[in-house]
Amino acid sequence: MTAKEINGRKIASELKIKIAKEVEGLKSKYKKTPKITTIIIGNDSSSELYLRLRDKACNEVGIISNHLEFKEDITEKKVLENISNLNNDKNVHGILIQLPLPAHLSQTKLINAIDSRKDVEGLHPYNIGKTLNGDEYIVPITPLSVLTILEHEKTELKGKNVVIINHSNHVGKPLAALMLNRNATVTICHVFTKDLKKHTMTADVLISATGINKLINSDFIKNGATIIDVGIINTKDGICGDVDYKSTIIKAGKITPVPGGVGPVTVACSLINMIKTFKNCVDENE
Amino acid sequence: MTAKEINGRKIASELKIKIAKEVEGLKSKYKKTPKITTIIIGNDSSSELYLRLRDKACNEVGIISNHLEFKEDITEKKVLENISNLNNDKNVHGILIQLPLPAHLSQTKLINAIDSRKDVEGLHPYNIGKTLNGDEYIVPITPLSVLTILEHEKTELKGKNVVIINHSNHVGKPLAALMLNRNATVTICHVFTKDLKKHTMTADVLISATGINKLINSDFIKNGATIIDVGIINTKDGICGDVDYKSTIIKAGKITPVPGGVGPVTVACSLINMIKTFKNCVDENE
Repeated sequence: MTAKEINGRKIASELKIKIAKEVEGLKSKYKKTPKITTIIIGNDSSSELYLRLRDKACNEVGIISNHLEFKEDITEKKVLENISNLNNDKNVHGILIQLPLPAHLSQTKLINAIDSRKDVEGLHPYNIGKTLNGDEYIVPITPLSVLTILEHEKTELKGKNVVIINHSNHVGKPLAALMLNRNATVTICHVFTKDLKKHTMTADVLISATGINKLINSDFIKNGATIIDVGIINTKDGICGDVDYKSTIIKAGKITPVPGGVGPVTVACSLINMIKTFKNCVDENE
Repeated sequence: MTAKEINGRKIASELKIKIAKEVEGLKSKYKKTPKITTIIIGNDSSSELYLRLRDKACNEVGIISNHLEFKEDITEKKVLENISNLNNDKNVHGILIQLPLPAHLSQTKLINAIDSRKDVEGLHPYNIGKTLNGDEYIVPITPLSVLTILEHEKTELKGKNVVIINHSNHVGKPLAALMLNRNATVTICHVFTKDLKKHTMTADVLISATGINKLINSDFIKNGATIIDVGIINTKDGICGDVDYKSTIIKAGKITPVPGGVGPVTVACSLINMIKTFKNCVDENE
């Protein structure tokens, strides 16, 4: 048996066609163009590719994306002032902060300072809380991307074992909430987990987001499992994921490749959230 | 081997002594007495005992607890008006809504309407989000109670397998977040889980909150596991928990009895949250 490869690029372009139509409708209804601003501090090269792809996607669907760039040594107070200005700017409908941040800045403080209605990443406690409470509205982008893929593939989640390898605030924990909201049995593993394999072997759906190349091979999975690879690693052989694709594809039921799997869908999901923050701003009903 | 029985009553009374001292200090500092109001709609008898114990505990530590009682058929609009009044009332420092609610009222809508600073139960999305983000402040009471017991017992969590049977908004999901914030490997099971035993057998710490009497017996647990029984069930033999205590105590390492385990600590934890909402109101710094 060979697994079905999930085509993330195709899912993403289908999504973008829908989103472009919705943006067109919103523009003519509200006589406004959605505009989002990304705060970029210092020049961490690891996020450049994602940023470039997101800007391209914004352009494709008719959303204005601009950057507010600061030097690495900007004070927290100054960043907070800028966030406050963006919160109050009626022409800005969404705010993002590019991560990772320089060490002297508190990620929690900065994210909490964003008006939750303009929080494109869905990381503000209010939005995270709604996600956990099953009252999902602006959901963090990577978890939304994984969910979008599973829904596109009509993957049954109720009563299934979902194993997530990642317990961060923006991936593993909100993703676990999304899976629990759909009545999956969920196990969350991470760097402190003992005997990872024992857990991953039980997974009907395995989602790996570690950034460790070839962490998962065919020995780690159950026959027919759905494998979602969130890892993006620059190797000498090009961009790779967490999963040893060649060995795993023989045993899995479905699998996302890297590149061309979760990545493109994540970019499209950021557009979905931009529409939501735009609606929050124009409707003032959230 | 026989497990150590964890004495919840003792933990609770130690906590209450500390809390009473803190309340005394706050009263003399702010010249105000903490006052919390519970909204009670209809007369669901299942919550009466807890309500009575909580009021007694408030009285013991010097917190004023009053009730705002409404008939079962009150409109949502009217409840929302009352919540708004309590939000604006400077003499009320904490608000609770007694659950379960009559079917015509939206729990989500009512809880979201509480000023997050006065949200004693820690169920408002903002507080839930802070809990998930590892920026814990007002934590839902039952999860806080389980954590308090585990910390009191100096239970190692990092790298340990924690299995939770419950995936509700106020117990399972925030409890999973608390355990992940401490780097446990966490599995969340529930009514849709297939082969529950396979999961519970892996648990170093097993937390059961189902309300199903004797769901867990010695066959379900690993030798030496810590068993936290959150169930409270009225049976013909008196109040019981989820765990078949007699069979399990022989195999477990530590175990909470019912009654006298999680229950009293949960009541004490509600007092901890009341102090936090009081501080939010007087400091205005949250």
